[in-house]
Amino acid sequence: MRDSGDLDKLVKVVSSALPGDQKFIALHEPRFCGNEWEYVKECLDTGWVSSVGKFVDRFEQDLAEYTGVNNAIAVVNGTAALHICLKLAGVEQNDEVLIPSFTFIATANAVSYCGAIPHFADSEMRTLGLDPFKLSNYLRDITEVKRGHCYNKITGRRIKAVVPMHTFGHPVDLDPLMEICANYHIELIEDAAESLGSYYKGQHTGNFGKLSALSFNGNKVITTGGGGAILTNDESLAKFAKHITTTAKIPHKWAFNHDQIGFNYRLPNINAALGCAQLEQLEQFLIKKRALADSYRKVITEVDCVSFMVEPEFAKSNYWLNAILLNKPDITKRDYLLEKLNDQGIMSRPAWTLMHKLPMFAEYPKMDLTIAEGLEMQLINIPSSVVLGETNE
Amino acid sequence: MRDSGDLDKLVKVVSSALPGDQKFIALHEPRFCGNEWEYVKECLDTGWVSSVGKFVDRFEQDLAEYTGVNNAIAVVNGTAALHICLKLAGVEQNDEVLIPSFTFIATANAVSYCGAIPHFADSEMRTLGLDPFKLSNYLRDITEVKRGHCYNKITGRRIKAVVPMHTFGHPVDLDPLMEICANYHIELIEDAAESLGSYYKGQHTGNFGKLSALSFNGNKVITTGGGGAILTNDESLAKFAKHITTTAKIPHKWAFNHDQIGFNYRLPNINAALGCAQLEQLEQFLIKKRALADSYRKVITEVDCVSFMVEPEFAKSNYWLNAILLNKPDITKRDYLLEKLNDQGIMSRPAWTLMHKLPMFAEYPKMDLTIAEGLEMQLINIPSSVVLGETNE
Repeated sequence: MRDSGDLDKLVKVVSSALPGDQKFIALHEPRFCGNEWEYVKECLDTGWVSSVGKFVDRFEQDLAEYTGVNNAIAVVNGTAALHICLKLAGVEQNDEVLIPSFTFIATANAVSYCGAIPHFADSEMRTLGLDPFKLSNYLRDITEVKRGHCYNKITGRRIKAVVPMHTFGHPVDLDPLMEICANYHIELIEDAAESLGSYYKGQHTGNFGKLSALSFNGNKVITTGGGGAILTNDESLAKFAKHITTTAKIPHKWAFNHDQIGFNYRLPNINAALGCAQLEQLEQFLIKKRALADSYRKVITEVDCVSFMVEPEFAKSNYWLNAILLNKPDITKRDYLLEKLNDQGIMSRPAWTLMHKLPMFAEYPKMDLTIAEGLEMQLINIPSSVVLGETNE
Repeated sequence: MRDSGDLDKLVKVVSSALPGDQKFIALHEPRFCGNEWEYVKECLDTGWVSSVGKFVDRFEQDLAEYTGVNNAIAVVNGTAALHICLKLAGVEQNDEVLIPSFTFIATANAVSYCGAIPHFADSEMRTLGLDPFKLSNYLRDITEVKRGHCYNKITGRRIKAVVPMHTFGHPVDLDPLMEICANYHIELIEDAAESLGSYYKGQHTGNFGKLSALSFNGNKVITTGGGGAILTNDESLAKFAKHITTTAKIPHKWAFNHDQIGFNYRLPNINAALGCAQLEQLEQFLIKKRALADSYRKVITEVDCVSFMVEPEFAKSNYWLNAILLNKPDITKRDYLLEKLNDQGIMSRPAWTLMHKLPMFAEYPKMDLTIAEGLEMQLINIPSSVVLGETNE
């Protein structure tokens, strides 16, 4: 184990990329400098704050246009979006769903809401997301395809879907993943909660899955307070998504009939109003976020013991959360670094505890998770707000 | 069957109780005439729009103070609140939960989210809610209590909870229901989605159940755009409710650990801000709503073929939605009346299709539902917005 000299230098260089006049720098705070007031006030003035209203329709159209996905359905948060994506992809009780162990809890919880079993897969350093080559080898060993469905030979359960997550905005390598899905009859659902504004080979993330999920939580690139969206190019799935997220009520001038068990997942109009204003500014936000990432990259590259996460060669990333990776010999110093940064008011955090280590998921199937285990100890997120990129312009 | 004379008179008298200068009168629209804009603007100006913020805390405190229930936990909507109430009351997969067939779909859906079975009970004319005496007789016939649990002798399943719903704001008769719950070892959950501001024997609804659910949807007495709350006098259940509605994350300065499958049900701060402003005005809203109900009562009482729903003798109701009840011989005229009223721009609707008639619940257990079947055909809701009571002052 080396001494802390390099890490102290790292704290200095991170600090140098940030404005020096602030006592506390948040990890990711929202930026409201557009039409937020105007649109929200319009909701209050007209009384249209709730589940129906013009901003919900507009936000859905704007999202579809921005991402290039044909249909967007606004919902109450990213977790709800994922839940419905899985349900509409046909995930049923006791199915297995492949997800990265290195992800936020929402990915695994959404699988559980379907009564299905998360099956944990490893990540790769290049993207921080699912490793398609490792997954391919793994599936070759443990699965068999029967009558158009993929079965886990060990558990006997059907493997219905795979949910790659575009970690901190960096797209996973989707082409080989899509090939795997085609070969094994597995549905692809993109967890694009972190990747609004991120592109894979020139196309916006969320275009590749049968369905995809976005999040507009307060810490995301744009926010609606709380919110999310389901994206899909499939017209009939889009209609079904709208129906099932709005209590599955059959339209009628007065009668209340519902044709199945639905969900109350609609996004209120007042939150959609915020989303419309935020989306107008997204391109500017991305320029600033990429500028900040570039500042970080330049200074952090000078430090020996760490590397700075840059977008994969096939991607353009929104750099939602900037990430430092400690070299393997230095992982024992992670908490030292976190203490130092946070002590200086530079809010920093490790990534998530791996899903397969949490008590409720500990007994579920998993492949070798060497890379994920490393990432859990190596990675630190550092402040990434849009406003910090403005200072760097 | 009589002719439509009385009904035409009814349309006239309803119309006479409403402002004559409006082309369209909504069923229930929100009223924003307090600090809504100030509080929402504060969220935007400070950047605190999302899942943490002072308005969430304040809204929870204000709700607890207003209702007299020790703890309120703000959530994303009333359906989510009900789901968590049931879960925390111990409702498990394959349990049965007694609910009125005459209710909004959320009551039944929330039971389904727990993997449990709605078991439909009848209502009474006095309250439009569960009939405790009929329920008591029914339970005597079909249940047995073993080892401290109540079992349905016919299905073999445990009956874990009963969820009375305070229909249109009129409280059910809670004392005999509580006695039944004690005798049969059944948990009482109040679906108080419609009854904020309604009192049973001087105490606010939501104080009687082990847990209770409120809703602040756009059509309710007060609104947060979309929102709800869990109420409970049990300190440890309150803590658990907060924990499980916020992804079950264990508090830590940076680590992401979750100790169980949780939910992303928190209310965004911007919606809570709206709630705080609305709650400040609730007392005034209630005065106006009761004034409107009184105007309706006076004129509708003059019409032969109908009655106007008034609060039960033990209750003070918020009169959330005013209701006309057609006499039994006239139920075939319901749709004629709905057409007439809606044609004149007076938005009116029947209550809900009974739950046991919906395809997904059709096979579930139920008692005799004579009164509910009648109510479905007899009842019409008429415009009930706060602003209509202002005109009547």
